[in-house]
Amino acid sequence: MEQLTVQELGARAKAVANVLAAASPKAKNDALAAIADALIARTDEIITENKKDLDNAEQNGMSKAMQDRLLLNASRIAGIAEGVRKLIQLEEVVGSVDAGWVRPNGLRIQKTRVPLGVIGIIFESRPNVTVDAATLCMKAGNCVILRGGKEAFHSNVCLTEIMRDAVASVGLPADVVQLVPDTSRESANQLMRLSEYLDVLIPRGGAGLINAVAQNATVPVIKTGVGNCHVFVDESADLCMAVDIIDNGKTQRPSVCNAVETVLIHRGIAAKLLPMLKARLDNHNVTLHGDDAAIEVLGDCVIPANEDDWALEYLDYQLAVKIVADVDEAMAHIARYGTNHSECIVTKSLENAEKFQRGVDAAAVYVNASTRFTDGGEFGFGAEIGISTQKLHARGPMGLMELTTVKYLITGEGQVR
Amino acid sequence: MEQLTVQELGARAKAVANVLAAASPKAKNDALAAIADALIARTDEIITENKKDLDNAEQNGMSKAMQDRLLLNASRIAGIAEGVRKLIQLEEVVGSVDAGWVRPNGLRIQKTRVPLGVIGIIFESRPNVTVDAATLCMKAGNCVILRGGKEAFHSNVCLTEIMRDAVASVGLPADVVQLVPDTSRESANQLMRLSEYLDVLIPRGGAGLINAVAQNATVPVIKTGVGNCHVFVDESADLCMAVDIIDNGKTQRPSVCNAVETVLIHRGIAAKLLPMLKARLDNHNVTLHGDDAAIEVLGDCVIPANEDDWALEYLDYQLAVKIVADVDEAMAHIARYGTNHSECIVTKSLENAEKFQRGVDAAAVYVNASTRFTDGGEFGFGAEIGISTQKLHARGPMGLMELTTVKYLITGEGQVR
Repeated sequence: MEQLTVQELGARAKAVANVLAAASPKAKNDALAAIADALIARTDEIITENKKDLDNAEQNGMSKAMQDRLLLNASRIAGIAEGVRKLIQLEEVVGSVDAGWVRPNGLRIQKTRVPLGVIGIIFESRPNVTVDAATLCMKAGNCVILRGGKEAFHSNVCLTEIMRDAVASVGLPADVVQLVPDTSRESANQLMRLSEYLDVLIPRGGAGLINAVAQNATVPVIKTGVGNCHVFVDESADLCMAVDIIDNGKTQRPSVCNAVETVLIHRGIAAKLLPMLKARLDNHNVTLHGDDAAIEVLGDCVIPANEDDWALEYLDYQLAVKIVADVDEAMAHIARYGTNHSECIVTKSLENAEKFQRGVDAAAVYVNASTRFTDGGEFGFGAEIGISTQKLHARGPMGLMELTTVKYLITGEGQVR
Repeated sequence: MEQLTVQELGARAKAVANVLAAASPKAKNDALAAIADALIARTDEIITENKKDLDNAEQNGMSKAMQDRLLLNASRIAGIAEGVRKLIQLEEVVGSVDAGWVRPNGLRIQKTRVPLGVIGIIFESRPNVTVDAATLCMKAGNCVILRGGKEAFHSNVCLTEIMRDAVASVGLPADVVQLVPDTSRESANQLMRLSEYLDVLIPRGGAGLINAVAQNATVPVIKTGVGNCHVFVDESADLCMAVDIIDNGKTQRPSVCNAVETVLIHRGIAAKLLPMLKARLDNHNVTLHGDDAAIEVLGDCVIPANEDDWALEYLDYQLAVKIVADVDEAMAHIARYGTNHSECIVTKSLENAEKFQRGVDAAAVYVNASTRFTDGGEFGFGAEIGISTQKLHARGPMGLMELTTVKYLITGEGQVR
């Protein structure tokens, strides 16, 4: 792999950005099909390179769970290729028209969708992100500069080479996909400050990465990820439904950002709900951290919760529980400790449902449904690049549309002011 | 005026942001009406405070043109109040629904508009911005922290007090509008890094301010302003139309970002167009900076253009002129020197019109109309906070809609994954 600097990668991406932006839907889809085919055809090569990363991980004492995230086998590679093929079916977004109108002076204005340009993505260990993120960006007409973690370096180099070869094989420039060949912190910092060439930077990783980006980046950033999500069970709730929603939010996949971390329970139903909830969560040995009122109901199987428990993303089989007086106290708690990701109320009260949906400041606010649905696929976007927890540009699951910007096309017959 | 720190201002804004976000359209419009009334009722007070700024300006040797920008008289104050009243008529955006759909599992998803939250605005001398920007942000449900230039300090303090009193008089918290009481560079830097409280920062000013923000801000930023705009006159153009469009773009208001700075002329018509253009621009004594080919046609009334002329925003009665071989050379020049603001082609060729609109990377791309139309009012937005030259969040004129973000409201009957 050629040892280009981050600056050189930026210049190369910028140089071909207009080619990809102008590429026909067919040209982009041909490139995606070629990538999917090549991933299958070169599966052995990927597994060989991935093995190097796995051997290093073993030597460095990486946990088995982390090693599993790193692993690529034939079935996982087929899954990645299938994900790329699904993108081909998605409707073209570049050139679509958000709105069009005619001004009194006869000017016709069209607000159209165009690619963002060059997107930088900094991500951590999972090598499937390399392909998922790059191909989604490409489908929306964007060039991409990837900077993966050192744990997956050999895998990422191999996957990037395969994508570049495939793109070139259908006549598009290979430089629409590039990987930073240096996994030092310095290369990440350079990417964060590559204002001359990058239109946007999307960090995908833990709080440490997100904070480093917030402090250092001069490039416009879309923050993704952190989710301290709550379920509030109102007095009027269907308690069986509440148990289903909390159990699903906590145990279906505890390590993800839309998992539930704290349950807030109306005091009028706590004595009835808590034993039901505990019985269900015991199936997954969920540890409860509760306030005094919760301990009063369930006894000392509940660990006393402290301030940290309200703020923590456990990302594990642990759940904080607090008894509240009403929907207002629940909303105040969420305003204080939430991360504006996904919040849920279980209720039969129209008034409280509306109050909660209006008053809670989050990307996704649920009435009577699991927070686990905050996901591009579940929303029907076909794919997602991440879940934005900021308010600028995109909020919530980001699909193809969120990887574009607008261009106004104005047509007249010589109008002047 | 109370001497609060930037941190304290941020905390106060954040504390009332949910009140304004939840305010009814009527409550917000009542506040706007109260502001407009108060501006008229307290005109003498504004003029007295403005006089202090004008006296300082005179003593400091500020140019007459700049002093004029600073001046507030009864007629200008009435104009500002009228601008506020116009906002009342604009349709409510908070709570409007961008899209709604039902998933196969029965979940109903609504993508709704909500305020951004707390907006910081750093601006330079013109005191009318204080009211224009604050009231537009408020109409969209946002709290605002203003940081104006020291030249207009007394005017800004007075205008802010009037707005705060008016807002409080109708029962909304005065802290929805605040002014940073310190015009040092340090206070601007603090605002740029107030991530804890600010949802977005909008700098309105020259390249120096925009660059300082790009380098220092940790808060999400929307850049506005810089416009090196071009008109390309194609071989097939109606030459009279071309002269009208260039004249309008250059001379109707040369100091603004959507004014024309460089004209690119197809070589097939240069000998005919240039004398017509010069004759018209002579009415405003426009100085031409041309390449060799332009000088060959017009002689030494044209100053030889150098590299700087292609990159410069003159913002004055000066115009760069370059002869090009075709639309491709024009587009390459624009790609190299343009600032992605507003670009125009004058042509009768459908092929070249489409090529230009598709291929030029700018917020607004015109066929046969003046670049001066890149403006919220001219686009029909009713008002604007500025013209974004970045690709993230908003691009081109930013009206009420661009001062909002989205919130997904999801409603179910107990759905889980």
